[in-house]
Amino acid sequence: MFCFGVKLIAMPVNIPESGQPRVVIIGAGFAGLKLAQKLYKHNFQIILIDRNNYHQFQPLFYQVATAGLEPSSISFPLRKVFQKVKNVYIRIAEVEKIQVDKKHIETSLGTVRYDYLVIATGATTNFFGMDSFEQNSIPMKSVPEALYLRNTLLENFEKAVTLSDEEEKRRLLNIVVVGGGPTGVEVCGALAEMRKFVLPKDYPELDFKHMSVTLVEANEHLLHGMSKEAGEKAFQYLSNLNVDVKLQHKVTHYDGREVGLEDRENFETSTLIWAAGVKGQMPGGIDASHIVRGNRIRVDTINRVEGLDGVFAIGDIAYMETADYPHGHPQVAQVALQMANNLARNLMRMREKKELEAFEYRDKGSMATVGRNRAVVDLPFLKFAGFPAWMVWMFVHLMSIVGVKNRLVIFINWLWNYMTYDQSLRLILRPSAKK
Amino acid sequence: MFCFGVKLIAMPVNIPESGQPRVVIIGAGFAGLKLAQKLYKHNFQIILIDRNNYHQFQPLFYQVATAGLEPSSISFPLRKVFQKVKNVYIRIAEVEKIQVDKKHIETSLGTVRYDYLVIATGATTNFFGMDSFEQNSIPMKSVPEALYLRNTLLENFEKAVTLSDEEEKRRLLNIVVVGGGPTGVEVCGALAEMRKFVLPKDYPELDFKHMSVTLVEANEHLLHGMSKEAGEKAFQYLSNLNVDVKLQHKVTHYDGREVGLEDRENFETSTLIWAAGVKGQMPGGIDASHIVRGNRIRVDTINRVEGLDGVFAIGDIAYMETADYPHGHPQVAQVALQMANNLARNLMRMREKKELEAFEYRDKGSMATVGRNRAVVDLPFLKFAGFPAWMVWMFVHLMSIVGVKNRLVIFINWLWNYMTYDQSLRLILRPSAKK
Repeated sequence: MFCFGVKLIAMPVNIPESGQPRVVIIGAGFAGLKLAQKLYKHNFQIILIDRNNYHQFQPLFYQVATAGLEPSSISFPLRKVFQKVKNVYIRIAEVEKIQVDKKHIETSLGTVRYDYLVIATGATTNFFGMDSFEQNSIPMKSVPEALYLRNTLLENFEKAVTLSDEEEKRRLLNIVVVGGGPTGVEVCGALAEMRKFVLPKDYPELDFKHMSVTLVEANEHLLHGMSKEAGEKAFQYLSNLNVDVKLQHKVTHYDGREVGLEDRENFETSTLIWAAGVKGQMPGGIDASHIVRGNRIRVDTINRVEGLDGVFAIGDIAYMETADYPHGHPQVAQVALQMANNLARNLMRMREKKELEAFEYRDKGSMATVGRNRAVVDLPFLKFAGFPAWMVWMFVHLMSIVGVKNRLVIFINWLWNYMTYDQSLRLILRPSAKK
Repeated sequence: MFCFGVKLIAMPVNIPESGQPRVVIIGAGFAGLKLAQKLYKHNFQIILIDRNNYHQFQPLFYQVATAGLEPSSISFPLRKVFQKVKNVYIRIAEVEKIQVDKKHIETSLGTVRYDYLVIATGATTNFFGMDSFEQNSIPMKSVPEALYLRNTLLENFEKAVTLSDEEEKRRLLNIVVVGGGPTGVEVCGALAEMRKFVLPKDYPELDFKHMSVTLVEANEHLLHGMSKEAGEKAFQYLSNLNVDVKLQHKVTHYDGREVGLEDRENFETSTLIWAAGVKGQMPGGIDASHIVRGNRIRVDTINRVEGLDGVFAIGDIAYMETADYPHGHPQVAQVALQMANNLARNLMRMREKKELEAFEYRDKGSMATVGRNRAVVDLPFLKFAGFPAWMVWMFVHLMSIVGVKNRLVIFINWLWNYMTYDQSLRLILRPSAKK
């Protein structure tokens, strides 16, 4: 132990060997966090690695971006989840490379040995190779990105009041959202509500009649992946809120001022929000032979990466074909949670040399909210929309949030915003400018 | 109006002349915000300039720094204060230079003409010329600085768990606070409570028996400016919380690892919080003849800067000598608010050619809190301490916060923290890393 070389391997990033099988989990999203929660009481040593010290509740990013919720309300410190737990080691680090032959991973903090490695790195924004969008549009796949979007929107309004050039002003006020999935629909609804109820009061100097919110979607209906009825209802609700929904429109380029459209006339905007797609967030060291469409890792029905001993992938990064899902599972929270549950059970069965159980997804339905009191809900045997759907949406999201206080604070925020038609979180909070 | 030169002067930063006397206020702290609120209904055109789009409630910065409150709970969007108000122009800008001869100011957005100029820029951290502290210590005079401190504290704990070197680990855990005023006392109390109730649960890998919180004060008692009894009580409460209070100690230098003390042994820490003093935040263009000790602007009892037509200073930046306060007034919120009130009345009297009224400070008392349920309160005719003082402290601070929802959220946070001995805001939130 006093030999430097030995120490590096034996105590990487200062984690002692406990004799328990060591499960290294990369990523503390829905999948990674759930797996750690399921396993830690069953005599495993858990090492949970994330680049942030908090779990993020992705379904509500759009409310952070539109100043409806604080980042802290939808983020939960990982250490609080595992308070007083001695066999969970949380490490805030970047994973640099997985070395499957040596059964260890290289991180920004040093090398970590594993018995079982679970890749739960999730998905990130997919620009489909279109550089002009990657450079000039704003994605919304993390809390900092959502905050960046909020700051940008507010700064654009602040800038607009100082301008006398009407064209330039309008370009600052117009917002284009690309991608008509739940994120795109929800952010458009929230922006349209802001334009209607909040912005004219905040900026009496500006005329918001000229501000446009435009949703561009390549498909022929919104909410692809949900029912056609849901997509049509969402279209109707957004139209009622004066969102300009452009179906079957394809964007081609964006230079920060002008969006190009295939076969249509271009139009001008300073703010383009990109919600058009995701791709797997691939850690280094995974051989290309395991990677399939959408930058995901192919796994068998036990979530094993075939041919790699002790390596698993769960959640958005995992691509699993089954009879019911021959093209892989949807990249949603429910799949991530259910894969984590199943893998936790299988890891215990492996230790006990019991037979493993194949993953089977139980679709509990999907939903999206539009504006302040409308939503669409697809349950397996029932589809509905409107105010009742919005109540269901609220309840399900509140109950899914980690932390009782978060629930309470979000509930008060929602109630407040609902009663007053107004949020009070319109702060341009800049990073600590220390030195 | 079509001549470019004329346009620049006539519509600086896009503000039209309204025919009303134009009051330009620099700074939206307690003084500047209150003045704008008092004047806008009385037929003045108000231009309120701040570098942030929010008002900050400074007395609770220390709770943001110690993860007890969110920045949004103690920040309030300026535009929300003046919703629908047409004669208040809010501009987010840096003031570059005041041109008293031309009666305008130069800002990052352009030139702004004034009839009356009110400097309410407040105070910033005073390092008293000690560069090593300016470079290596952490101040706490803005929301971003408070967030920076929070992130640094949490990152140090995260780093400590990855280390096996005990000396290095202890240096990361130890915290030194310089300055035994209300800020220093309050932050030490909060840190000591965190060490006692929160950190051992969050970091079962670390031994917090070795973590020290040290308060260094040059004076012979704490809370200089309050009564001797208050200082002694604060000393006692902090000692009960195992804060090492070093009175009559002077710091000499700090390199980021070691603090030097005059006539004493040095000691080691990675985190030094600087709460030792403030100085006026001077805008450019004020002649040195107006500037006195502490970088403040000398004003008469009407808050006029003598010899400068139409220029006033209020709040922390103003230095006014009166019979009761021959060395200037204390730099506290109450003085700022009362000066703003008096100046608002005098500006109206000026317009009506009435006699002006000299400022007279009514001391309503001062207070500081120590830990989770103790405080010291000095009222003009009564001094008390302990739990009742803490109740008073809570009530006064809650009532002083701008915004009903802020009050509600802070109250819930306090109640929650009080009942659970735990905050849940321990997030290392990084700025948007977009490009």
